[in-house]
Amino acid sequence: MPDSKAARTLGIGLIGTGYMGKAHALAYRAAPAVFGDLAPVRLAMLCDATDAAADRMATQFGFARATSDWRALVASPDVDIVAITTPNALHHDMALAAIAAGKHVHCEKPLALTLDQARAMEGAARGADVQTMVGYNYTHNPAFQHARRLIADGAIGTPVHFRGWVDEDYQADATLPWTWRATRAQAGLGALGDLGCHLVSLAYGLMGPIDSLIADTQVIHATRPLPDGIGHAAVENEDTASAVVRFASGAQGTLCTSRAAWGRKSRLDWEVHGTTGMLTYQQERMNELHLFQSTGPAAMQGFRTILTGPAHPPYGDFVPAAGHQLGFLDLKTIEVAAFLRGIAGGPRHAPTFTDALAFEAVIHAIDSAARSGQRVTVTQAGDHP
Amino acid sequence: MPDSKAARTLGIGLIGTGYMGKAHALAYRAAPAVFGDLAPVRLAMLCDATDAAADRMATQFGFARATSDWRALVASPDVDIVAITTPNALHHDMALAAIAAGKHVHCEKPLALTLDQARAMEGAARGADVQTMVGYNYTHNPAFQHARRLIADGAIGTPVHFRGWVDEDYQADATLPWTWRATRAQAGLGALGDLGCHLVSLAYGLMGPIDSLIADTQVIHATRPLPDGIGHAAVENEDTASAVVRFASGAQGTLCTSRAAWGRKSRLDWEVHGTTGMLTYQQERMNELHLFQSTGPAAMQGFRTILTGPAHPPYGDFVPAAGHQLGFLDLKTIEVAAFLRGIAGGPRHAPTFTDALAFEAVIHAIDSAARSGQRVTVTQAGDHP
Amino acid sequence: MPDSKAARTLGIGLIGTGYMGKAHALAYRAAPAVFGDLAPVRLAMLCDATDAAADRMATQFGFARATSDWRALVASPDVDIVAITTPNALHHDMALAAIAAGKHVHCEKPLALTLDQARAMEGAARGADVQTMVGYNYTHNPAFQHARRLIADGAIGTPVHFRGWVDEDYQADATLPWTWRATRAQAGLGALGDLGCHLVSLAYGLMGPIDSLIADTQVIHATRPLPDGIGHAAVENEDTASAVVRFASGAQGTLCTSRAAWGRKSRLDWEVHGTTGMLTYQQERMNELHLFQSTGPAAMQGFRTILTGPAHPPYGDFVPAAGHQLGFLDLKTIEVAAFLRGIAGGPRHAPTFTDALAFEAVIHAIDSAARSGQRVTVTQAGDHP
Amino acid sequence: MPDSKAARTLGIGLIGTGYMGKAHALAYRAAPAVFGDLAPVRLAMLCDATDAAADRMATQFGFARATSDWRALVASPDVDIVAITTPNALHHDMALAAIAAGKHVHCEKPLALTLDQARAMEGAARGADVQTMVGYNYTHNPAFQHARRLIADGAIGTPVHFRGWVDEDYQADATLPWTWRATRAQAGLGALGDLGCHLVSLAYGLMGPIDSLIADTQVIHATRPLPDGIGHAAVENEDTASAVVRFASGAQGTLCTSRAAWGRKSRLDWEVHGTTGMLTYQQERMNELHLFQSTGPAAMQGFRTILTGPAHPPYGDFVPAAGHQLGFLDLKTIEVAAFLRGIAGGPRHAPTFTDALAFEAVIHAIDSAARSGQRVTVTQAGDHP
Repeated sequence: MPDSKAARTLGIGLIGTGYMGKAHALAYRAAPAVFGDLAPVRLAMLCDATDAAADRMATQFGFARATSDWRALVASPDVDIVAITTPNALHHDMALAAIAAGKHVHCEKPLALTLDQARAMEGAARGADVQTMVGYNYTHNPAFQHARRLIADGAIGTPVHFRGWVDEDYQADATLPWTWRATRAQAGLGALGDLGCHLVSLAYGLMGPIDSLIADTQVIHATRPLPDGIGHAAVENEDTASAVVRFASGAQGTLCTSRAAWGRKSRLDWEVHGTTGMLTYQQERMNELHLFQSTGPAAMQGFRTILTGPAHPPYGDFVPAAGHQLGFLDLKTIEVAAFLRGIAGGPRHAPTFTDALAFEAVIHAIDSAARSGQRVTVTQAGDHP
Repeated sequence: MPDSKAARTLGIGLIGTGYMGKAHALAYRAAPAVFGDLAPVRLAMLCDATDAAADRMATQFGFARATSDWRALVASPDVDIVAITTPNALHHDMALAAIAAGKHVHCEKPLALTLDQARAMEGAARGADVQTMVGYNYTHNPAFQHARRLIADGAIGTPVHFRGWVDEDYQADATLPWTWRATRAQAGLGALGDLGCHLVSLAYGLMGPIDSLIADTQVIHATRPLPDGIGHAAVENEDTASAVVRFASGAQGTLCTSRAAWGRKSRLDWEVHGTTGMLTYQQERMNELHLFQSTGPAAMQGFRTILTGPAHPPYGDFVPAAGHQLGFLDLKTIEVAAFLRGIAGGPRHAPTFTDALAFEAVIHAIDSAARSGQRVTVTQAGDHP
Repeated sequence: MPDSKAARTLGIGLIGTGYMGKAHALAYRAAPAVFGDLAPVRLAMLCDATDAAADRMATQFGFARATSDWRALVASPDVDIVAITTPNALHHDMALAAIAAGKHVHCEKPLALTLDQARAMEGAARGADVQTMVGYNYTHNPAFQHARRLIADGAIGTPVHFRGWVDEDYQADATLPWTWRATRAQAGLGALGDLGCHLVSLAYGLMGPIDSLIADTQVIHATRPLPDGIGHAAVENEDTASAVVRFASGAQGTLCTSRAAWGRKSRLDWEVHGTTGMLTYQQERMNELHLFQSTGPAAMQGFRTILTGPAHPPYGDFVPAAGHQLGFLDLKTIEVAAFLRGIAGGPRHAPTFTDALAFEAVIHAIDSAARSGQRVTVTQAGDHP
Repeated sequence: MPDSKAARTLGIGLIGTGYMGKAHALAYRAAPAVFGDLAPVRLAMLCDATDAAADRMATQFGFARATSDWRALVASPDVDIVAITTPNALHHDMALAAIAAGKHVHCEKPLALTLDQARAMEGAARGADVQTMVGYNYTHNPAFQHARRLIADGAIGTPVHFRGWVDEDYQADATLPWTWRATRAQAGLGALGDLGCHLVSLAYGLMGPIDSLIADTQVIHATRPLPDGIGHAAVENEDTASAVVRFASGAQGTLCTSRAAWGRKSRLDWEVHGTTGMLTYQQERMNELHLFQSTGPAAMQGFRTILTGPAHPPYGDFVPAAGHQLGFLDLKTIEVAAFLRGIAGGPRHAPTFTDALAFEAVIHAIDSAARSGQRVTVTQAGDHP
């Protein structure tokens, strides 16, 4: 009964208290205070691995109740939104259960380990009277949304080429022990699943859908030492992936990712080549956008570093002065606000499960192309942010 | 009765809902959820200029009650901490009243329009059984605290020279109308009061106290159009200030500020020259610190860009991954946490009214040196962060 | 009779006075004065399109004689080195003639329009008693050679991944008229021939030879207006190319090029991912090298910007102070010096025709892979710088 | 008899073969080949400390004759231009002798150790029928000249504030032995003489003359070990200097220099604050200029990085493609060309002895202000570039 859901204060049920769990908790706390147009929310229930941990974190995060049973959280009548921040392998069951219970679902990326699972989740959501949101948080950066507006306004002409990279170094150290994250069964894809899908979310937002691609992947550290110190085990999923893509628009481009790129802490960089200009962005300087326009005298042309500010909504809802900088967590707050508005009947929010399925079809296509050595056509699914 | 204050949940009374008011509100909401060691706080009462505004913002920010009477807020028994974010001219009376009421005071910078007022506030605080904190938020940046640790650890040898700049462009436009901010009576100092004191807070943290200085100031836009369109009025306070300082340590340096520096949105940059290395920082890239060390082969030396991360506490309490970036508002959350710990009997927090008085003695000394054309000795007041 | 050639002052015969012609002229003038170990050279003869132009430029550049007949220059007994800087389509005939005349050949890149022509040139050179050098000038940058030494010394462990980009914007403007440069018959490859081969020369120097690749190419401006204003003609060669490569070492990587990348004036950037660190470089800041090493405390790690200086030979032969910067033309001077030393029996210089053939096999393989849609194995040819 | 001098090929007599001597030699070799409008020059005579050294370097640099007697060089009838690149203490006598001999003089900066000597040199030159040029090479950077044109064209409105820094680290190491460079008698000023005067040359070019200033200086390493290992000797001249200046235009600004700034290899950075924009420059990236203009929508404003190219004369005389970069030595070639044109009756060149005297009056005023603790009025002397 969506009407009753909309009429009352929304209750948040959060599963997970780690990296992303905390980000969600902070964002749901902050969003209604940051944005004057949002109704307050209730932090209804928090689920962690044990009751003790759940209790402790519920106190810290300010949730009313705690549980170690995620199914109890999903079933709880005072929970209207289920936020899923658990390891990726668990997303599928949790999301399906939440949808079945008529709850709105805010799921971290990627949707699932396999494209089949993701399709099942998307199908379930589409068939239900619930709203969904997937944690492609970088799409909410005011700098990114400004880039999209600039492109739409023709600031660089027609976008004709794209390059993107998403790199970190969390698997760069050869001496790190083997974990389940190295298995395709438990972790699914490697760098593509952790990082690559973020890049696709940005590429879609800037360039539209990808039609087909060729690709290669690489395992840099083929084995890792077992934690018990006796022997090594194989790494099954990719450390790097590189794809040359064709967009539906006719543009081409490259998508590259590595989880073994020393010194890269949050590289998620891109460049859009247009017929009259160029836009570039570096995530490690997330409050800057770089614009080249081929107008005016040659002697005065150059890449312009635009510092985000109140002219780039919703930056001004956080700080009324440009150049003071939003942080990583602020993007999650914007994401939460968009979701809450969508649930309240506001403008269509994104990315939903349908959008996310489109993004994730690409990373699986990259994996597939690398395995087959052949050009792979990307299954289209829905639209994009 | 501090014991009773410490025993119960602290109630926050916030005066002001503007730029800094919102920053305080968000920070008091966030701090206990970010930091596991903090007790929860109550958002007890919010004061704004009118009852209607106060009501509306109390709802948005999540405060229990609202008022347009700041004296009522100060007097309210459920308020333990009074946070003052009003125009600077009001700080003095509000802080004195709060101290008189036995409340802890969290005051935005600068303490006051004049050094006399600041001294009165510091004296009152020192004589009372209350804790104080002043909003020199940039001192709480993990990058800044890391710089302090690096210096303490000898990473650049002995600091022997300092340069700092704090620039914005909010008064750069010659066509902006005249406001009370241009008067010394109502606004006090110009760029020095708005911006310069921030720079001093960093210089003190990095180099220790300043002994004496020479300086010059400049009014770039001597008059501004009156809002009613008939005529112009004089700008009484400085657009720029430049000082050459001598630190107590024997080091020298320069402090520069401008509120009319086009393109500078939040420049608060500094460099510390050491006997074996150099540290530099740019506030518009607030998650980076630059370190040069004169060790190793010359062919491999260079400035190193350190991206802040969990290795730079308390960054990791926000995000467990380096390079993902804190934002401006996160610094206020760290400031609030430090204050709450200090009130709870934790480690000495800073900057207190005593620290702030020391910082602000410098900006008044710069003004004085510029007016007299003579070297001015800075009145020492307390220690520093 | 090489002995006699070595015994006397070498006479330079330069064909072409344009962009590269001038660079060669200046470099042959400068090299013996810059480097104390070189014998003087004679600027013997200059060839330009007309006698008048040749005369005028010979005076300006300081050549003893002038001609509009390149065959006369090649045949001239006082010419020992023939430097070829004409349009690419002419390289083949000129080089073969010079080799046949027993002259050393300094040829601009690429060797030729087709791989068959390049093979013929390389074969002729290998079978003759002459030295060759090809103008892959960026390989002579002290920053690049330092990167090679750092890799050899293990500064980043084993190189396991490579990414490179070479972009300019000289064909970005859609309104530029059609020229012969758009034809495969007269110009050969597009961006790959102009720019891409430079990137390959650096990739080989850093990573060793490429075994195979997949690729795609794109024509952004499919037609261009004819100069006479009536109609358009087709652009036959690529504006962009993107390849995913496998090196013989097992490393993977991407090579990307565009001649239609607005704002890029001399982008020739690369990054080498190693097992313990990372090296990156940007050609538009050609005196800087960026090094990340995963050693020392995490809190102090970061990319280091190394400014080239006397510690990076032969920088110090130009300027004895670091950070003062070499320019584009200085690289050509280093190239000339290496060639002169090679001719004088010094250390093996590079890149020769054999090296260049290896580089250029890659750009033709990229073209071939893009056309066929299949993985292409690169024909190996000789070694590399 | 200037007519006869102009009518024949100018003969260059170069005194000194070190850092700057080589730069002059290479520049006089290159200039006529780079610039089509220049007549050829003769490299007539080279003077070095010993006959053997002079012979060797004359061969390397291509000078016709060599000597160890600078007076012989000055007196030689085939020498028309005397280029002085010896230690600063020798400039005065050599320049006066050359002027007395009716030779044009190209002198490295600073003119002399003391202002009195500089005045004598300027007076002698002004009273003679010779042309002079002083080696303020950074003023010839196309980026700098473009900045001057932008300011003249109103690109940033009226310049109202200036900041400049010139830093190196050649005296940063505390363990470097004491040399005569530490004495005022033999070396004159410290960082001000080596570096500070360069900054003044740029400040004058951008902002016009300085009227008065206040200043402080600092000796960081008060003593240095004597080379023989027994004891230390005092350092008499400044390691750093910092001045707050008032320009004749009414603008204010700061000038800072250090020769003990670790990591700075060629910092010579400045920023010009205008009433509608800002220009900034960093010498270690000498082919870039940064421009902020307060025009257009706020959302699109930002600092623009202009890469120098053919649109910034005379860059295009070196390389016809933007972004390919000039180097340090190319600036000296432009300086030589300007001097040769001035001698040939072309446009007034700069900086002459008169210009240099104006620059150097400022560094002596800074020294004087630091010693007296008082505001010092700068003696005006001639005009500026």
